[in-house]
Amino acid sequence: MKKMEYDVVILGGVAAGTSAAASAKRVKKDLKIAIFQKEPYISYGGCGLPYVISGDVKSPESVIALTPEIFKEKKGADVFVNHEAYEIDFSNKIVYVKSDNGEIEVSYNKLVIATGASPIIPAFRAWGENGIFKLRNPDDAKNILKYINENNPKNAVVIGGGFIGIETAEALKKHNIGITIIEGTDHVLGNIEPEIHEEFVNGLKEKGVKILFNTFADDIIKENDKFKVITKNGNFESDMIIVSIGVKPNTLFLKEKGLNMARNGAIIVNENMETNIKDVYSAGDCATVNHFITKENVYIPLGTTANKQGRIAGKNLAGDDDSFIGVVGSLITKFEDVEYAKTGLTLKEAIEKGFDADSVFIKSGSRAHYYTGSKKIKIKLVFEKKTGRILGAQLIGGEIHPRLNTITSLIYTNGTVSQLRNMDLAYSPPFSPVWDIDLVAATQAVKKL
Amino acid sequence: MKKMEYDVVILGGVAAGTSAAASAKRVKKDLKIAIFQKEPYISYGGCGLPYVISGDVKSPESVIALTPEIFKEKKGADVFVNHEAYEIDFSNKIVYVKSDNGEIEVSYNKLVIATGASPIIPAFRAWGENGIFKLRNPDDAKNILKYINENNPKNAVVIGGGFIGIETAEALKKHNIGITIIEGTDHVLGNIEPEIHEEFVNGLKEKGVKILFNTFADDIIKENDKFKVITKNGNFESDMIIVSIGVKPNTLFLKEKGLNMARNGAIIVNENMETNIKDVYSAGDCATVNHFITKENVYIPLGTTANKQGRIAGKNLAGDDDSFIGVVGSLITKFEDVEYAKTGLTLKEAIEKGFDADSVFIKSGSRAHYYTGSKKIKIKLVFEKKTGRILGAQLIGGEIHPRLNTITSLIYTNGTVSQLRNMDLAYSPPFSPVWDIDLVAATQAVKKL
Repeated sequence: MKKMEYDVVILGGVAAGTSAAASAKRVKKDLKIAIFQKEPYISYGGCGLPYVISGDVKSPESVIALTPEIFKEKKGADVFVNHEAYEIDFSNKIVYVKSDNGEIEVSYNKLVIATGASPIIPAFRAWGENGIFKLRNPDDAKNILKYINENNPKNAVVIGGGFIGIETAEALKKHNIGITIIEGTDHVLGNIEPEIHEEFVNGLKEKGVKILFNTFADDIIKENDKFKVITKNGNFESDMIIVSIGVKPNTLFLKEKGLNMARNGAIIVNENMETNIKDVYSAGDCATVNHFITKENVYIPLGTTANKQGRIAGKNLAGDDDSFIGVVGSLITKFEDVEYAKTGLTLKEAIEKGFDADSVFIKSGSRAHYYTGSKKIKIKLVFEKKTGRILGAQLIGGEIHPRLNTITSLIYTNGTVSQLRNMDLAYSPPFSPVWDIDLVAATQAVKKL
Repeated sequence: MKKMEYDVVILGGVAAGTSAAASAKRVKKDLKIAIFQKEPYISYGGCGLPYVISGDVKSPESVIALTPEIFKEKKGADVFVNHEAYEIDFSNKIVYVKSDNGEIEVSYNKLVIATGASPIIPAFRAWGENGIFKLRNPDDAKNILKYINENNPKNAVVIGGGFIGIETAEALKKHNIGITIIEGTDHVLGNIEPEIHEEFVNGLKEKGVKILFNTFADDIIKENDKFKVITKNGNFESDMIIVSIGVKPNTLFLKEKGLNMARNGAIIVNENMETNIKDVYSAGDCATVNHFITKENVYIPLGTTANKQGRIAGKNLAGDDDSFIGVVGSLITKFEDVEYAKTGLTLKEAIEKGFDADSVFIKSGSRAHYYTGSKKIKIKLVFEKKTGRILGAQLIGGEIHPRLNTITSLIYTNGTVSQLRNMDLAYSPPFSPVWDIDLVAATQAVKKL
C-alpha cells in the first residue's frame, strides 16, 4: 500500500474542510496539509443548489468557489478528489484512503474529520431511475436541470418539507412544474411557530402548491414513465420526485472506534472543535455544535456553521486560539415573495428547556405605512418572563432580514425586551415604520413581564 | 382673557406631542388633556415629506396619521390647531396661548413641551418668493409639488447637504430636475466616515448631481424669473431653491424662564423626559436626548426619537414608569440605489470622546457572490482596542439595513467584535454571503485588538 505523511490530514473538502485547511495555513505557513475528498470537486456552496435550479444562480459550476488545482495553488494544501477515507487508526494516527488508483496509508499529526452529511434515502423501489433525485451536490443540480430540459415534467412530488424541500419546490415552480409536497409531520420547515406556520402554508396554497401533512411515502415506484408515490393517504402520480427528508452525518466508517458521537452519528466536539480523541478535530455537517442558549450539543447542519467550525478547527490545530460562541439556530429562507426566518428558541422549545417563557405575536409593515411597497411582516417574539431576556423570534413576510438580525444580536448579548423597546433602530420611511416591528413586539412583551 | 383648565397641557402636536397624549391616556383614562398646535394639522410624519415630492408617497395628506377630530375621538385628548403658546408662567402653572380667536390662559397640572424645531433660514433676499422653499411640513411639500407642476423647473440648488437636503435632491431628480448641492462644510450627511463619504459623493456625481463643498450661500436673489445664489466661489443660477441647512428648537419664547437649555436652545431632559422644572416635561425636536455611548446630552432631532420621548413623557406624567435607554445616532437613508447608514460613533468621534478606538474598512456583497442581484456593501466598523467593544459602524451600498441593525443591537448590549465574528447570523444565498460583511469586519477587527 502506498504511504504518505502529512502534518494535517483533512477528510472532506467542502465548507468545513477547505476552511480548516485555509485557516491552518494562514496561521502556520509551513504546515503540510492534505485534503481527501470523496467527490470530484471541493469547496462548493451547497446552499446555492436550489437556486441553480431556479436560475437565480447561473450554472452548477457557479457555486464552486475553487477547483482543487486553484485551491492548492492559492491555499497551499494538497487536494485529492475522488479519494475516500474508509478507516482510521487513531492510536497510530493513520487514515486509510481509497481511490480508483488504489489505497493509501496516510499518517497525520493532526486530523480534521469534515466528511459532511448525506441525504437520507429510504429504500424506494424507484430510486436510481431517471427522474427521482436528491439535491446535495452540483451533479445533482446538473441532473435535475437536464431532466427538466429533456422531459419537460408537468408536475413533481417533493418528499419532505424542510428547508431544502421548500427551496427546491420554489425552484421547480419557476419551471412551471406543479408542486405537491408530502410531509411526514404536521408542519413544514422544522421547529416553526404555529402562527407563523399557518401564514406560510396559506401562502404556499395561494401560490398553487399542494401540501399533504402527516403523510409518509411508503414507497415510490415507476410505472409507464410516471412515478407513483404510495402513501396511506392515497397514491400520487408525478413526472418527477425530489427526496429531501433530511441528512445523516457521514460517520458510519468511524463507529465504535472510541470517538464520542451523538445518537445520529454526529461527532461531538467542544467549542475548539476538538473531539474526545487527542489531535482529532471535527467540523461541519458531520459534527455537533454547541447551542448558545441551551448550552447543549445539537445537530443543525448548515453551511454557515460549517465554515465557522472549519476555520476554528484550522486555527486551533495550527496553534492559534479561537473558540466557537455557538449557534442560536438562525435560519432564513423564502418562497417567492414570502420570506421566513427564525432565530433562537420557539416558545415550545423554550418551555421544554425549562425557561419560564412567554411570547407576543405582532403584525406590522416593513416601511412607513404611507411609503410605497411596504411589506407585511409578522413576528413571534419569545422571552423569559422573569428577566425579559430575549430567547427567540420567528418572522414571516417581506424585508424581515433587518428585524431578524436585531433579535439574533440581542440573543447573543443576553439583551432584554426592556432594552429593545426603546432602542434607536435606524428609521426612514423607505426602510422602516417609525416604530419598527421589533420595537412594537418588545413593547408588548414588557407588559407581560 | 378666556380661561381653561387641564390636567395635562401639551404644546405641540406632531410626533412627540401626540405620542405623549396617547400614552398618558392609555395609562390614566380620565386625565383631561389638551394639545395646542401652532400649525393647522397634527400627527404627521415629517420624515416622509421628501418622498411626497418624489412620488413614493401618494400625497401630502398621506403622511398625516390622524386629523385633530379623529385624534380627539380615538385618543380622547382635546386638540387645538392654529393655537400657539407664547408664554408660560411656570410658578403659577399657566400657559398663554393665542389664536385667531384671541388669547387663552390655560392652567395645567403637568406640562409637556413638544414644540419641535424649525428650519434655519438665513436672511436671503429672495426668501418669500415663489420657488424658494424649506421642507418641514405637509404644506411645504404641497407648495413644492405645485411649483414643479406649474413652472417645470429644469434645475434646482439645494442649500445644505444634510439628510433632508440629500433626500429632497433625490426627490427633485425624479422630476428630471438637475441638482446642485451647495454645502458649507467639506462633507455631506453630517458625521460621516471619510471612506464612506468618498463613495457616497462619487455615487452622486455619477448620477449627475453637482456638489460644491466649503461653499456658503451668502445671499440668494431673484432676477428675471431665475434665482441667483451668491457665494464666494461664484454665483449659481437656478429655477428653484431648497433651503435645508439645519433646524433650531422652537423654544425662543421659553428663554430665561429658568428652564435648563443646551446652547442651541434645546430643552435639557433626563431619561424620564423631565426638565429641571417640576411637572414640566419635554420631548421631541425641541429637546436634547441622552447618548447611550457617551452619556452626554446631545441634539439629534429625529422623528423616531420624538415618538419614543413623547411616549415616555406621557407614561411618566400619568404615573407609569418608563425611561429612555438613549440614542446611538442611528440613521439610514438612500439616494436612488445607494443606501447609507450609520450607528454609534465615527472613529473621529470615538477618539474625541476618549476611547482608545480603532477601525476596519471592509468591502463585500449583500448576497452569495453567485446569487443574482448581490449588491456591493462597504462597512467601516469602529471598536475599542482594549476590550473589542463595538462603538459604531457606517455602511454604504445595497441591502445594508440587516447589517446595520446587527451593529446597533450590539452597541446597546456592549457587544464585542470577538462575540460578533462567529455569531450565527442567518445565512441563505438570496440574503447573505456565507460570511456576512459584519462577521468579516469583526474578524479583521479582532486581529487589531
